[in-house]
Amino acid sequence: MNERLQPIHPVTLIGGGPGAWDLITVRGMHRLQEAEVILADHLGPTAELSKLVDVSTKHIIDVSKLPYGKQVAQERINEMLIEHALAGKKVARLKGGDPYIFGRGFEELQACTEAGVPCEVVPGVTSAVSVPALAGVPVTQRGVVHNFTVISGHLPPGHEKGLNDWEALARTGGTLSVIMGVKNAPKIADALMQAGRDAETPAVVIQEGSTEAERVVRCTLGTLGETMREHEIKPPAVYVIGEVAGL
Amino acid sequence: MNERLQPIHPVTLIGGGPGAWDLITVRGMHRLQEAEVILADHLGPTAELSKLVDVSTKHIIDVSKLPYGKQVAQERINEMLIEHALAGKKVARLKGGDPYIFGRGFEELQACTEAGVPCEVVPGVTSAVSVPALAGVPVTQRGVVHNFTVISGHLPPGHEKGLNDWEALARTGGTLSVIMGVKNAPKIADALMQAGRDAETPAVVIQEGSTEAERVVRCTLGTLGETMREHEIKPPAVYVIGEVAGL
Repeated sequence: MNERLQPIHPVTLIGGGPGAWDLITVRGMHRLQEAEVILADHLGPTAELSKLVDVSTKHIIDVSKLPYGKQVAQERINEMLIEHALAGKKVARLKGGDPYIFGRGFEELQACTEAGVPCEVVPGVTSAVSVPALAGVPVTQRGVVHNFTVISGHLPPGHEKGLNDWEALARTGGTLSVIMGVKNAPKIADALMQAGRDAETPAVVIQEGSTEAERVVRCTLGTLGETMREHEIKPPAVYVIGEVAGL
Repeated sequence: MNERLQPIHPVTLIGGGPGAWDLITVRGMHRLQEAEVILADHLGPTAELSKLVDVSTKHIIDVSKLPYGKQVAQERINEMLIEHALAGKKVARLKGGDPYIFGRGFEELQACTEAGVPCEVVPGVTSAVSVPALAGVPVTQRGVVHNFTVISGHLPPGHEKGLNDWEALARTGGTLSVIMGVKNAPKIADALMQAGRDAETPAVVIQEGSTEAERVVRCTLGTLGETMREHEIKPPAVYVIGEVAGL
């Protein structure tokens, strides 16, 4: 801590959207422009940051390059947010998608709050909805679905730390949009079918949605795992299961 | 149709976000600025449109004032989008939230496509996630939930046209975020509890989130209906049910 009393500016957690630079919110862009220090992920508009701000005037830290393992990276990110804020800097934390949708944003807010640093969240467009939309798939349609579920597929069904009830998820009557689920797609599809979801349910897989590298593959729940393997789908990818994928 | 061949510009369906003017995306703002005709809803940033565009140069049509009943309004909106586009105008359709989350955006796209008018969608920040976030409630948190469901509560459980399996929705293991469900809140809470969701599950109700008129009330699933009645909660409101509402 400095001996001189520094004003502490709120840390801003900004949702950057699915990847394209102009799918961040206007508020998010303004907060980036006001910031002195930007901690950025590899997802979201980081690659095109110069279209949103004058990067030459910012201290930009690519935190996706921090060593990862047993939460080291997240703890270090929390520490860096707090260190720069306590040093009197205007700090923005740029995250892909929305900070509060599997983005660990609330953990960062909690860490800041515990350290006496105020924190503001700027919501973002989530890839779970926007990536399908840009590929022509609406997560809802009148007369077809009255709900949709966004699922983190980072743990396979049956995993001891899993918190998804796949049996119930198969029967909500709504659209399922899975993110972080490339590796576990075959097991997830199997679990949904075993719980009664029709193998003929339309599905769509979108890799690197909203960017120039976007790839879209349509299939069914029954062929999802095989289709993703054949097309060598790699993260980041979203897949949507439900009648809307066939509209 | 004109005798002269008019170029047809794509109609742009823009998600305006939850209400605050600066929670629209940068792309959405740019498309509004390029537009000659804007068809706007009463939700989203319509009230503050002058902060995003020079409204004096636009033909702005408030379609929320169209007569409503047996789909007349939606059909008329579709017709107006097509008419202005075929007349060679650059048409933007500004919707609250995200166009494809209970926004009937895909119906508008289908109507345009059938009429030979190309259509582009610009995703938006959905109120189902952003309104809770701005009120301090994350829809996901590590170790707490691995999924969340956005539900339209416009039909009560048991309604013959309802497409939600409330029994399954009670048991997904995730967060539930209900929009358009003010009137049916008591019946929805009852259905979820009857299906086994704990009455002590934290809940939060947010009316007119992201605007200056925002009101936030915390309660539990068991007290949700009563709480909303006592506080005279009116649409637009979102309620979130799940452990995250108690963080």
